[in-house]
Amino acid sequence: MCRANKMSVRLLRNTEDNCHHCGSFLASSTGASLCWGGMERLLARFRALATCSHQLSGYIPCRFHHCAPGRGKRLMLSRVFQPQNLREDQVLSLEGKSGDLTCKSQRLMLQVGLIHPASSGCYHLLPYTVRAMEKLVRVIDQEMQAIGGQKVNMPSLSPAELWRATNRWDLMGKELLKLRDRHGKEYCLGPTHEEAITALVASQKTLSYKQLPFLLYQVTRKFRDEPRPRFGLLRGREFYMKDMYTFDSSPEAARQTYSLVCDAYNSLFDRLGLQCVKVQADVGSIGGMMSHEFQLPMDVGEDQFAVCPSCSFSANMETLDLSQRNCPACQGPLTKTKGIEVGHTFYLGTKYSSIFNAQFINVHGKPSLAEMGCYGLGVTRILAAAIEVLSTEDCIRWPGLLAPYQVCLIPPKKGSKEAVAAELTGHLYDHITEAVPPLRGEVLLDDRTHLTIGNRLKDANKFGYPFVIITGKRALEDPAHFEVWCQNTGEVVFLTKEGVIELLSQVQVV
Amino acid sequence: MCRANKMSVRLLRNTEDNCHHCGSFLASSTGASLCWGGMERLLARFRALATCSHQLSGYIPCRFHHCAPGRGKRLMLSRVFQPQNLREDQVLSLEGKSGDLTCKSQRLMLQVGLIHPASSGCYHLLPYTVRAMEKLVRVIDQEMQAIGGQKVNMPSLSPAELWRATNRWDLMGKELLKLRDRHGKEYCLGPTHEEAITALVASQKTLSYKQLPFLLYQVTRKFRDEPRPRFGLLRGREFYMKDMYTFDSSPEAARQTYSLVCDAYNSLFDRLGLQCVKVQADVGSIGGMMSHEFQLPMDVGEDQFAVCPSCSFSANMETLDLSQRNCPACQGPLTKTKGIEVGHTFYLGTKYSSIFNAQFINVHGKPSLAEMGCYGLGVTRILAAAIEVLSTEDCIRWPGLLAPYQVCLIPPKKGSKEAVAAELTGHLYDHITEAVPPLRGEVLLDDRTHLTIGNRLKDANKFGYPFVIITGKRALEDPAHFEVWCQNTGEVVFLTKEGVIELLSQVQVV
Repeated sequence: MCRANKMSVRLLRNTEDNCHHCGSFLASSTGASLCWGGMERLLARFRALATCSHQLSGYIPCRFHHCAPGRGKRLMLSRVFQPQNLREDQVLSLEGKSGDLTCKSQRLMLQVGLIHPASSGCYHLLPYTVRAMEKLVRVIDQEMQAIGGQKVNMPSLSPAELWRATNRWDLMGKELLKLRDRHGKEYCLGPTHEEAITALVASQKTLSYKQLPFLLYQVTRKFRDEPRPRFGLLRGREFYMKDMYTFDSSPEAARQTYSLVCDAYNSLFDRLGLQCVKVQADVGSIGGMMSHEFQLPMDVGEDQFAVCPSCSFSANMETLDLSQRNCPACQGPLTKTKGIEVGHTFYLGTKYSSIFNAQFINVHGKPSLAEMGCYGLGVTRILAAAIEVLSTEDCIRWPGLLAPYQVCLIPPKKGSKEAVAAELTGHLYDHITEAVPPLRGEVLLDDRTHLTIGNRLKDANKFGYPFVIITGKRALEDPAHFEVWCQNTGEVVFLTKEGVIELLSQVQVV
Repeated sequence: MCRANKMSVRLLRNTEDNCHHCGSFLASSTGASLCWGGMERLLARFRALATCSHQLSGYIPCRFHHCAPGRGKRLMLSRVFQPQNLREDQVLSLEGKSGDLTCKSQRLMLQVGLIHPASSGCYHLLPYTVRAMEKLVRVIDQEMQAIGGQKVNMPSLSPAELWRATNRWDLMGKELLKLRDRHGKEYCLGPTHEEAITALVASQKTLSYKQLPFLLYQVTRKFRDEPRPRFGLLRGREFYMKDMYTFDSSPEAARQTYSLVCDAYNSLFDRLGLQCVKVQADVGSIGGMMSHEFQLPMDVGEDQFAVCPSCSFSANMETLDLSQRNCPACQGPLTKTKGIEVGHTFYLGTKYSSIFNAQFINVHGKPSLAEMGCYGLGVTRILAAAIEVLSTEDCIRWPGLLAPYQVCLIPPKKGSKEAVAAELTGHLYDHITEAVPPLRGEVLLDDRTHLTIGNRLKDANKFGYPFVIITGKRALEDPAHFEVWCQNTGEVVFLTKEGVIELLSQVQVV
């Protein structure tokens, strides 16, 4: 059979030992069925196809017409769009008459221009927050794909008939934001997507047990009409959520998948340095046979959970008798803690697959209902929750991996003694981005040189860049020493250019 | 002034020439104000902070419990969730009774499981499409950030009062999807965000001309209640759009920004290999003083535009007199072409800034209205449009940069003569991902070894992987030769492992 004849593109075949570009006999050492000249021409063609002014790394020269030529690549702090509201009364007025400043992360994020209210429970995410969120999504992608997760993207407009099929159109009541299109057809804005994904998988009529499990997830906006949105990004009406739905061929396989996803969640929170507690939870309106919440302990948390210090028992208070003071497992006294739910897992069984008839052909050749699980992570909520638990009253601290920029460089004040060393900062900037490729795009230069170093350091401390590097007095030494503030460990060291590179080479960037 | 006292975190200062970790005198050659031991300990601490099981590159080992240990890293085609509908009648029934198969890209994308209808004009994006879209977004990010663009993220729920202020609540009529929340407050689902971004920038009361221009953009879902959605992702009701809004301090600066963004759009389409035509356009409901569309010529395009072969004139037919046959610039005859609008730019002047009072302090210290522009790119539309113009009737072709996977490896059929060379495919897989780091995550192994090589090659050709590498007859030679199909150039070559690496090292991955 000639495969080439079945193809609709023009194809050249080479079944001879001669180069099909020039016909010359092949030297077998060339590693190709082309002579050197042919191989070179082939590669040249690919190089030409790949020709553009941009490098592979995604780091491309700035064509910003307002930058001086030599400074084109450097990110200047003065150009960042970041509506700040540093006075308490400014922040209060932002949230409107009925708005409350109900927690630290909300206040800090409004103050430094990370978020801006759009309407009740809805926020504009400003550039720093978008950068942090994109990093968080990359970490989530890594963790989900490491366990075989495949990313999909489902519309927010979710037809009413799907929700009526599971009775959740009525059950979820006013939490659903509902609307009609121009033809009068009803939709809700999806707060979660069990119905949609199950109908999608059910549409695949010839699914075999050999193809399962499927672990399908998305990171998209979700909508929930909270009666009283509060705490900024911690409890909004429009928010980003990672939702994963799994389809297995047996209850045993489904439980294995369930614990696999829980492990991935633990790994995620470990990498972020957030000490979450996995607690038994109520299944609520989602339903199913088993559920856990990942709770991040904090005072403003609206959930209460109990942990037993003597055994591994932990549970949301909702699942316990109100009067229960002792651990059901070991009878030891329970400790009660407030927390915020940053993740939630459900083993659903066939609750949804039976309604939408999501079947696969089992090992005996018979149709069988898929065993499902669903798993949520509050993406924007994790950002705010991390800031809530890591920050001081005045200074934002980020999980190292998620910091919007890893490094902030502070050159001397204009007109100061150290100003003669001013250009060292720019050179250091270029040197860092050349010597440590993962830090490209991660270094910001605070070019507001009309301010003192002290004032800019105070700002940098408030914003929480993991590394702040000052060109100060000791930059006048030979060799020049830079003052390096490692914000997440609370240390200050003086390092030469080489020392800075050695230190920054250790930084993890996602 | 002691800066340390102003900080709320515990900080150690070192103003001496002794190591502040162990007190020993510093050898100046260590490149740090720490002795070797101190520097080593500092670095060790950072290494410990950075400790996790994952590598910097984002490539992390698979913990998928269903994979055999040695194969953990390899992506297997049989596990991809991709509901296929290869028969014409299957595809037709997908779109429902009223649905039409109105163009090639819609048919192909439904056939091979790139998209799946969710409701009229709304599609589930399946794993391959999500991968392609994420690549497109990365290219867009590079282009926008190269001209100083800053990424924000605005809610879809857009309060009615914003739209009433510009009269677009009524003007846009039934195209707006409108809803009320539980308190009766009215919103629409944003089809575009001039109102929201202008109100946001207006909230910044102390904006100086020195901070301008701002180029703010987002890549988010947009909603438009099309009377008759059609052509799959080319004209949907819920779609991804990149929208950028610019704020300048003078009409001259705004026009400079306008041409800068147009250049970035040209660069983007160049990199994708899409030959767009920039044409003069009508300002429509957006308004403003100048507008251009980026049209991709295609037969199913719903726009008509005219180009003059003798000069650079080009315009949407809407802007011309219906009877106009000659170029207004050089009087030469006009050529008329159908196209689809993949980008649109507007110079808005102060239309929106005057309504929301988006001001800055000008060089004379007086408040002045910002000069605005807005710029759209249809993200999901570009994906479908690229498939529409690059594909044959039966085989999808992608812009090289956007192909969901760059390489598909096809091992021999089980039980065939070549099956003795089967493990060479796995080794080649590992070798590629080790030797060409940008291709990590880009190589798929078609493990459906119950199918012939020919059948799998036919599938691979349909899906449009830029490189298909077959372990066939000549893999039995010494050294083994692989059959490499370069789909975008229509060539087939036989290469050793080293030749494959040399070829693939040239591939551009975004």
